[in-house]
Parts: sequence; C-alpha cells; structure tokens
Amino acid sequence: MRVDNRKYDELRPVTITRNFTKYSAGSILVASGNTKVICTASIEEYVPPHIKNTGTGWITAEYSLLPGATPSRVPRESTKGKISGRTHEIQRLIGRSLRAICDLALLKERTIWIDCDVIQADGGTRTAAITGGYIALADAVQWLIDKNVIKENPLINSVAAISAGIVNNIALLDLCYAEDASAQVDMNFVMTGSGKYIEVQGTGEEYAFDEDQLAKMLTLARKGICEITEIQKKALGT
Amino acid sequence: MRVDNRKYDELRPVTITRNFTKYSAGSILVASGNTKVICTASIEEYVPPHIKNTGTGWITAEYSLLPGATPSRVPRESTKGKISGRTHEIQRLIGRSLRAICDLALLKERTIWIDCDVIQADGGTRTAAITGGYIALADAVQWLIDKNVIKENPLINSVAAISAGIVNNIALLDLCYAEDASAQVDMNFVMTGSGKYIEVQGTGEEYAFDEDQLAKMLTLARKGICEITEIQKKALGT
Amino acid sequence: MRVDNRKYDELRPVTITRNFTKYSAGSILVASGNTKVICTASIEEYVPPHIKNTGTGWITAEYSLLPGATPSRVPRESTKGKISGRTHEIQRLIGRSLRAICDLALLKERTIWIDCDVIQADGGTRTAAITGGYIALADAVQWLIDKNVIKENPLINSVAAISAGIVNNIALLDLCYAEDASAQVDMNFVMTGSGKYIEVQGTGEEYAFDEDQLAKMLTLARKGICEITEIQKKALGT
Amino acid sequence: MRVDNRKYDELRPVTITRNFTKYSAGSILVASGNTKVICTASIEEYVPPHIKNTGTGWITAEYSLLPGATPSRVPRESTKGKISGRTHEIQRLIGRSLRAICDLALLKERTIWIDCDVIQADGGTRTAAITGGYIALADAVQWLIDKNVIKENPLINSVAAISAGIVNNIALLDLCYAEDASAQVDMNFVMTGSGKYIEVQGTGEEYAFDEDQLAKMLTLARKGICEITEIQKKALGT
Amino acid sequence: MRVDNRKYDELRPVTITRNFTKYSAGSILVASGNTKVICTASIEEYVPPHIKNTGTGWITAEYSLLPGATPSRVPRESTKGKISGRTHEIQRLIGRSLRAICDLALLKERTIWIDCDVIQADGGTRTAAITGGYIALADAVQWLIDKNVIKENPLINSVAAISAGIVNNIALLDLCYAEDASAQVDMNFVMTGSGKYIEVQGTGEEYAFDEDQLAKMLTLARKGICEITEIQKKALGT
Amino acid sequence: MRVDNRKYDELRPVTITRNFTKYSAGSILVASGNTKVICTASIEEYVPPHIKNTGTGWITAEYSLLPGATPSRVPRESTKGKISGRTHEIQRLIGRSLRAICDLALLKERTIWIDCDVIQADGGTRTAAITGGYIALADAVQWLIDKNVIKENPLINSVAAISAGIVNNIALLDLCYAEDASAQVDMNFVMTGSGKYIEVQGTGEEYAFDEDQLAKMLTLARKGICEITEIQKKALGT
Repeated sequence: MRVDNRKYDELRPVTITRNFTKYSAGSILVASGNTKVICTASIEEYVPPHIKNTGTGWITAEYSLLPGATPSRVPRESTKGKISGRTHEIQRLIGRSLRAICDLALLKERTIWIDCDVIQADGGTRTAAITGGYIALADAVQWLIDKNVIKENPLINSVAAISAGIVNNIALLDLCYAEDASAQVDMNFVMTGSGKYIEVQGTGEEYAFDEDQLAKMLTLARKGICEITEIQKKALGT
Repeated sequence: MRVDNRKYDELRPVTITRNFTKYSAGSILVASGNTKVICTASIEEYVPPHIKNTGTGWITAEYSLLPGATPSRVPRESTKGKISGRTHEIQRLIGRSLRAICDLALLKERTIWIDCDVIQADGGTRTAAITGGYIALADAVQWLIDKNVIKENPLINSVAAISAGIVNNIALLDLCYAEDASAQVDMNFVMTGSGKYIEVQGTGEEYAFDEDQLAKMLTLARKGICEITEIQKKALGT
Repeated sequence: MRVDNRKYDELRPVTITRNFTKYSAGSILVASGNTKVICTASIEEYVPPHIKNTGTGWITAEYSLLPGATPSRVPRESTKGKISGRTHEIQRLIGRSLRAICDLALLKERTIWIDCDVIQADGGTRTAAITGGYIALADAVQWLIDKNVIKENPLINSVAAISAGIVNNIALLDLCYAEDASAQVDMNFVMTGSGKYIEVQGTGEEYAFDEDQLAKMLTLARKGICEITEIQKKALGT
Repeated sequence: MRVDNRKYDELRPVTITRNFTKYSAGSILVASGNTKVICTASIEEYVPPHIKNTGTGWITAEYSLLPGATPSRVPRESTKGKISGRTHEIQRLIGRSLRAICDLALLKERTIWIDCDVIQADGGTRTAAITGGYIALADAVQWLIDKNVIKENPLINSVAAISAGIVNNIALLDLCYAEDASAQVDMNFVMTGSGKYIEVQGTGEEYAFDEDQLAKMLTLARKGICEITEIQKKALGT
Repeated sequence: MRVDNRKYDELRPVTITRNFTKYSAGSILVASGNTKVICTASIEEYVPPHIKNTGTGWITAEYSLLPGATPSRVPRESTKGKISGRTHEIQRLIGRSLRAICDLALLKERTIWIDCDVIQADGGTRTAAITGGYIALADAVQWLIDKNVIKENPLINSVAAISAGIVNNIALLDLCYAEDASAQVDMNFVMTGSGKYIEVQGTGEEYAFDEDQLAKMLTLARKGICEITEIQKKALGT
Repeated sequence: MRVDNRKYDELRPVTITRNFTKYSAGSILVASGNTKVICTASIEEYVPPHIKNTGTGWITAEYSLLPGATPSRVPRESTKGKISGRTHEIQRLIGRSLRAICDLALLKERTIWIDCDVIQADGGTRTAAITGGYIALADAVQWLIDKNVIKENPLINSVAAISAGIVNNIALLDLCYAEDASAQVDMNFVMTGSGKYIEVQGTGEEYAFDEDQLAKMLTLARKGICEITEIQKKALGT
C-alpha cells in the first residue's frame, strides 16, 4: 500500500481549471494531488534570433517554484541572481515537449510563452506543468484563431506527461514527493495523445535498473498518459 | 465617474482567503478588485547577520510579479539575473511596514519571510501585498504560538495599506491601473489599525502638488485604511 | 539642544561650488554641514529606448558613496557586482525630482546624466544630491543654450530637497547622521522653488506617527526648502 | 550507408590515453572518432555543504567545450558570465552517472572532481566524457589506494555511455555530429559494466517515436556499451 | 614643443592636499596637471583569507573613474555589474606598489584599503593614484601609531610613479591625455624614494621599440620620480 | 644550479605541434618544459563595435587554465561567473602582442580569435601562449590566403615572449613555477623576431630592483627570444 493509499498503477486526482487569471491568452490551474501549478500562455509578436525572418514561430517555457510552495522555504532564483541547473533542465523539457506537437510554421513569426509557476509542490511538478501547459497553449492558440490572427490550428496532437519509478524494488505510477525522495529510479515520460513518446528520461539514484524494471515503468506510463489525455480532452470539451 | 464606476472615495472590493496553499505557516490570497496577490509566510530558524546573537527576530519580504499577471508578459527577474529598482523598493517597503507592528524581541531569533507573488495585476499590488502580508504574518505568528514555540504574541497592532492620487486634478482613493497610469500624483499610505502612519510616499509624475491636494489625499487614505482594517479583522475573526 | 547645537528648525550651512571639475557641462560641489556631494551633469546625444523617436529628452541620475565617505569603509557596488536596493531608491528619486521641473520636450532627444558622488557623508546625502543636482542641471542646460543646441530653457522651476524627522518625540529639520540613526520618523521632501511638493516620503522606524507630528514635519520642510531655494538662486546669480 | 561509412550498429573507434597530463590524480584523453575529450580527476579534501560531517564522499563533474573545438568558434561561458542550460544538464548527468557506481561512504569525506574539456567535437561529447571520466575516476581512486589514503576500492562497477538515435526513420548507434543534427530522435544511455541502466534519456526533435523504435535503440545501446566496456577494461589492464 | 608647452623632460605641476575629507584615516587630493584623484585610506581589522592567522597585514587598493571625470561620460562599473580588465590591472598595480614598501608583519593582522577615485582625468591617473595613495597610506599608518595601535612604522621607503612614452619618435616624460592617445609607446614606472624599481610596464601601441628608446624612457622616469619624491617629502613635512 | 638543472641563461625545451586539433584555422600545442598550452585560431567575419565600418580587422585573445592543469584544482571562471583580474591582464597582453605585428588593415573587416587553454601549468603560461599563439595566427592567416580571402599577408613580423627574473639575487631566464613562486622580481618580455620590444613588464614581489639587475634581465630576455624565434621559424618551415 502506498503512502497515500493509491494502488501501484493509480494516478493522483488530476483537475484542470481554465481561465484561472484573466490577463493571459491562456491561464490554467492544474492540480495533480497536492501538486498545484499555474500555467499561463502569453503571446509576443517576435521570435528568438535563431529563427528570425524564417516565417516560423516559437514556443518557450519558464518554470519556477514559489518560495512558499514547499514546507521549507525555497529561495527565489531572482535573488540568487541565476537559475539553477534543475530549473534549466525543466524549462527546456517543457518547451521541447510543447514544440513537438505544434507545427510552428502555422503559428507564424510569434512566440508563445508558457509560464509554469508551482504554488504547491508534492512531486511531479514538471509533469504537471507539461500537462497543464498544453491546455494553456491550446487556449492561446484558440485565442489567436478567434481573433483571426492565424487561420489554421497549428496543434497536431495533444501532449501529457507523467512519472513512474522504482520504490523498494516495486514499479509505481505517479510518484508523490515522499515516494520520489526514496525512489531507486525516477523516470519522466512525455507522450502524445496518440501514444507516442516525445521524451523518456530515467535516472537511477545511486542505483542501476534492468530491462524488466524498465519495461514495467514503460507500461505504467502508457496507462497514466492515457488517463490524463482523457482528462485533458474533457477540460477542453473536445 | 471613475473608469470602474466607483465614487472618488470608494475602495475596490477587498477579499482575503486564508490557507490558500497548504505547506506554509501562513498562506493568503488577497484580492483588491482585479489585483490578486498570494502572500505566504515561511519561518526559518535563523536571522540575518546584522542581528545575529541579539536574541531578536526579523521579518523580511520578497515581491514578484508572475509573468502572466499583466496583459503583456513581464519577463522574470530570475532570467534577467537581477532584481529591478522597483522590486527592491517594494519589498523593502513591505518588510519595514510589517516590522513596524511587531515586537521583534518577542519573536526570538528567527525570521519570518513574507513572499508576495502577484498573479493578477491591476494597480495597487504593493498595498495589497501589505494588507495580505499582515494576515499571513498573523497566521504564522499564531502557528508559532499554537506550537508553543513562542508564548507571547509579538504583534502589537495590525497594518494595512492603500493608495490615493490626483487624476485630472481630482483626488481619488485606491487607483486601479488605468487611473494610476494617468495620475498626476500617486501616493501610498501604510497605517496601523489604530490610525497612525507607518509610511507616507507621494510622487508627482512630472507634476507638483499643493498643500490642499495633500490634505485631501491624507483624508481619503485614512478612510480607506479604516475600512480595510475592518475587513482584516473579519478575516481573522477577531 | 541638538547634537550640533542647532535649533529644531535650523538648517545646516549649505554651500554650493560651481565648476568644481572642468570636463562636465555642469559640475557642483554641494555641502550641507559635513555632508559633501559632487554633482556632475553630462550630456549624451541619445535617449533610453522607451522614448526613442518621440523627440523628447530625458534626465537620469546615478548615486554613489565613495568608500572613504564614512568612518567605516563602504564597499564599492562595482566590486559587489550589483547596486543595492537603497542606491536604486535614491537614484530613482533624484531622477524623478529633476524631471519634474523640466519640460523634456524642449530638451529634445538627448539625455542629461546627473552623477551624484558623495565624498563625505553625515546624513542627508540624497537631499543634498537633489539640491546640488539641480544646479548641475541648470549649468548643463545653460551650456546647451550657450552652444545654440537648444533655444528655449526647458527648466520650468527650481527644485530642492530636505529632511525632517521625529527624534525623541520632537520634530527636527535637516537631520545629521547621529540624529538620523536614532530617529523615530525620517521624512524626505522634494519641493519646487514655488513651494509645491514633488515627493513626500516618510518612514516610521519601528514607530508609527500621528497627524500632528506629520503636520509639524511638513511645516519644517517648507521652511527649509524656502531657505535652500534662496541659496540656490544666489549660487546661480538669478 | 552512414556519412562516415559505418554500419547502423557500428561504434566509432574509441581510444583511451591515460596519464595525458601530469599534475592530476587521473588524466585521460578519450577519443570517439573525431570527438576528443580531456578528462581529469582532482581530489579535494572537503565535501559540499549538504553532506558535510556525514563521513561520506562526493563525486562531481564539470564540462566545457574549448572555443576552438568546433568549426565555428564557441564563446566561453566564463566570458558570458554564466553556464548555459545545456552545460548544466551535461555536467549533472556526468556527475550522477559516476556517483551511481561508487560507494561514496568508502571514499570518505572528500570530493573527486571530474573535469571534462572537449578539445574536438563531432557529436557524442557527453557520452565520451562519461566513458573517459570513468577511467580518470578509476585512476584517481587507485592513486588514493596507492597513497594509503583509503583502503577499500569504492568503485562497485564500471560505467560507460553511448548514444543511439533515429535518422531518416532508421535506428543508428553512436551518432556523429552530422547525424545528430538531422536526427528525429536522439537518445543517450548510461549503463554499468554489468549491463544495467543508470540513465536513459531520449528526446524526439519535433518528432514522436513508437514502442518499436524505442526497442531498437535500446538494443543498439546495449551492444555499444558492451563493446566500450571491453575497451575500458583493456585501457585499465583489468 | 608639447601640447601644454612643457619641455620633453618636464613634469606637470604636482600638488598634494592632505585631510581632503574628514572621516578616513588618510584622505588626499592629488593633482598632476589637470588629473585629480581623491585617495583615501581606510583601516579594517581583518585580512583576506589567504593570510588569515599569519599575524601579518595587508594593503589593497581600488580604483574608479567618476562618470564626469572625462569630457564624454564614463559609465559606472557598478551599473555594468562588473569591473573592466583595465580597472583590474590598475588596482592590482596600485596595491602591489604600496605593499612593496611596507613591512606587512609590522602592520599586524589588519587591512588598509586605499581607494583612488579620479574626479578629473587628463592622463596619468594610475601613476597619480600611486603617488597620492602613498601619502594616504603614510597618514593612515601615522594614525595607527598616534592611537598606539602599532608601535613601529611599517613603511620602509616611499613610493611614487610616473609615465614616460614615445610620441612622434621622441621620448617624453609624464604624458597628458592628448599625448597618451597618440603615443607609440606608453610606459609606467613605479619606484621607491631611494631610486629602485618596483614596477616597469611598457607597451608598444601597434609599435615596437628599441634598446635606445627604452634607455631614454628609463632616464626620464628616474628624473621624474626624483622630483615627485621631493614633493611627497614636502607634503609630509619630512 | 637551478631546480631543473638548467643554467641561469638556459631556456626550457620548446616544442610546437601544428594542427593539434582539426576544426580550427590554426591549432597549436606549444610546450615549454612542463607547461603546455593549446592555442587555436578561429576566424569570424565581423569586428568589435569600436572599429566597425573602418574596413580594418581585429585580433583578440582569450586565456584559460583547465581545472586539472595544476596539482591543486583551479576552479573554472565560468562557474565563478566572472573572469579574474589575472586572466584579464593576460588575455589583454596576448591580444596586444599579436596585434602589434599585424597590419590589421590588410586583414580586412574580420576578427581572428586566439584561444589559449593551458592544459599543464609549470610557470610561463602567458609567454608560452604568446609564442604559440603567433604560430596559430600565422596558420590562420595562411588559411585565409590559401582560400583567397585575403591577398597580402598582414603579418609584418614574428612575435615571441619569455620571462626573466631575480631569484636569490641572481638573474635567471625562463622561470619555472618553483622559481617563479620564490622570485624577487618577475619580468615578462614580448619581442618581435627582429629584436624590438612590444611589451616589458617587471614586478618586484615585495622587493625593489636596481639598474644593474634590470640590465641583466634585459640581456637574458634578448637571448631567450632569439632562440625561440628560431624554433618558431623551424616550426613554420620558413
């Protein structure tokens, strides 16, 4: 039995609140159990230098923990004057994941910023950010279509993410913080709504895992993504 | 008639939600019209160097705008690598205001961090942060008392803040963003629950104001603070 | 009786030396008692991005303490790699104060930099910087007129600044460092030569003040500014 | 046929030169085709704060590209004043991989730094850095044993790394730069000498991959790691 | 004939004003023609880490140009967030020069900071800073002796500095800015009062110089240092 | 007898390996005894702002120690977030030295970057970097000529560098680290192949030196440069 009474292959409850704040083109509060993330999508009419004048668009993400998101306060990265390696990794992951399901040429030369600010952290913040970031992105894209800025929908699929891991030699789906802290292996999966992989990242924590354990985690992840994809569809009413 | 149909001496609706998130000693969502700020209070068992080994405590504040808080995205200060002069000013103001109503010696050698993260910005974010920050502080202090960490309540008063200004030569209470952007004078007032001043800050925006205008703004501010103090009392159930 | 034998409403002696150094369009040494500040005005033929191509000019200020300005050495902000919150606040205040008395459109698209470097600090450095910065600005503007770069004088008023405070429950004008360090309230006033307010900033130091105390400080400040304005006029020979 | 005439499951030639420089406890030049990395191991008699006084040791890695390592010069991160997200990711990966095969308690309270400086880059620099970093680590550990600083060898396994990817829908082992630049999927594998996974990281580049493709890359990686492990054994003479 | 009518081997007038400001242990205004530098000496009761607990003292210097020191404004290094290579070079030179004439063991475990702030720059600012810095140091040392903090004078010699250069193939002493800007060779010499070299630094500006030119500059420098040493003695009344 | 059995006027063996890596226009491994430096030359088709649109080219240098280059690990400057004063000095010296022997107008509007990365440090790294940097520059220039990018060779001379110093009151040529660490005087000389000075930099380490000692070091340096110039010629086959 898991720390929060879930079965080994059971997700925490996922809720998605749209229009959480009112000034962004997309604004989502996504909860996965006690993990809560605000994902906003903002549109800017320019692109980064490396694709300037190519007619193509860009999606980029930033990620931050609010200082009060965890029981012991997390110092702000703005105060420290630089972004940690962990933050860098996470926001690059979110950005890549969202770009993978978008035909950036159809977006035209503009950037959609996905800002993921964790207000309550209980493990799985990066996967929740991807799951919610997709809804924020979808709302921003719809905003562009409604305003006749673009004609065709550039999103070619949906995307969601989930973790799986090995804890006490048992493969578990969707680790909460307590499980994550004692996990032997922690994997994150980003997958499309049609069941293909975008990212697979697994790390043994002073531990090495075998073929069989990898296979079990892959199976759990596929089940979890499938369920989250349904929740995303419902949230968007599609 | 004002842009949002208020009278010249009318506050925007103020709402205070306690226990907004679950991992901080105090966690508040304060709204003042469309301005919404999350204020959390975190306790750390050490103090800054300048008061180390004096037996006295400290209260400090940090302030940030979430990138999606305004219609055009605000770049993160963590990404820019440094905190702006405006942010510095605001977080110093919040910290001073909260320390002014606390007997720091009774807090003993520990720090209470008040983190104010604006999730929706429509003017008056710093005054809302003080108004809400006080409630977060009060909850954190109660948490310390409940846990028997301290015996006596170090808070000797309540504190709230509000703006007043001159727009088109008319003195107005509690400027929203549209009013603030065209104001000739913008003043912020921090006052105790018993009606004394902690901070008075007024700035003519390429404009100089006279004795009479100053007197009108002082009167408006006293009225506004009085009303907010009542809302704070109700929120705390005192 | 005050620490330096002044009456409660008495200014420290103010002296203004023009042409203190020879390479700037304006260069002033201003002394207010033992506080001494070098204020230079430098002209650059461009403006900050936010007003580019508007045809209007800009005035901006920077402020610094020389390391040897106080009895215990002040580390350089260049060595620390960033500017403190206090410095940010002060240089924003000086800049706003000087812009408030200038018709920036008449200055045309150029920037006047006012650099205020404190060589000896005994309290009131920011107010001395404004008082002296105005003279440096006036000299720079005259330089532009003499060189036929601009035709009309953009300065529509003079500006000066002074502090007042509450020390041992008594309202005092122009606090020196020893008074400032033990003050209950410290206020800074920036006013035009015609007696209007540009900035009013008052702070209770772990203390809250009432209507009556505020009124007394306002009265002291008006008297002080009036006297400084006369000294400024004499210095400029107007 | 691949760009450099290799078969789909063929490694580039791997060479390992020990004692490449003379002042480090371990110093390796590792080449994988045209990719060349200097890996040095330096020992310091202290540990990072988070494990201080636990009696346990630490292994950490840093990674850098020399500016002339690629056809178009790479600006130094020291000049830019900060480390990129990519560098952060890579050096965290190298450090985790080496810690995973070491019993840090046997290392005692000291740190081994593995510095990986790429002098020639043709793809696969991070995997070469792990492969060579292991040899540098092994040499440094032997140095400690030879000097009687530690008694027991803390290395419980060997570790090596390799990439696999999908290029033009075909799964390939050990991508060179030209292949990597056009890859649909790029995966990096870190495995122990006994064939277990430490890290699995796969990324679709604006592409999603299926179960079958993943399986093919896993198979290729296992083959490649197996061969590299033999080369490592030979280099160490074990 | 030189730009300011000096002979080839003629110094600009050097004046030294002691006690220029009142809060430092030493405070000098040194002028060399139109170049003017404030040099203050501040004493701190600790030393840098590398000599901690050795019982020996330290002398360190910092150097800065005030923004208004030159006809076109010099941006502050505090605003740029880092110190330029040129500033680094100069302050290291000043520090080394002053340490070379001091028996640091006699100073005991404390640091004397020499801060050199150029208020007017017409070439030769670093050499003026050394010449004036020595007087500030001497005053600070005397202050320590007068206060009975140290018993023996740690200064074993005086130190002064001057430039020489080749302009239009002619060797000149003490280059002003206009000469320096067109010089083929620019050399700086730091020498003791007894005529020995502490530093010799010569640079051809896209030019290479021969033995004979070097000899001429050495001769000029010896003459100049000799004269400055006399002025220093007079200033100190020794 | 010296620590490594050399005579007082004897160079350490100098070896120059061309084409050390394959992706740069010039790539040299230069060794001077145990000091080893990789010098690469990279060409970029733009110039720094201060010479933009003048039609003239630029040569600039960067210098770094690999962390494992010395017995106790040197922290990376990229990790510290800024370049030390020492590094600044060295890279400015290398850049000036190489520019001094190049007719930059003939290079046309492009920049040659000389990157000097020390892989093994035993004193004299900056002089080895100049000696090797010249060969890398010569190879890059030849590359430009071979590719018909420029017609005329802009190099008007060769350049080499060497140290001399006073150790135990004896003048020595080419100090190794152990000698440098105990030297009373340390001088670096940069000279052209035709025997003229580009840079002369001598520093007494808490020591002052006289005319005679200076003369001896000058003589040693001339001998050393002469020998290195021959080695450079041989390496280039000219």
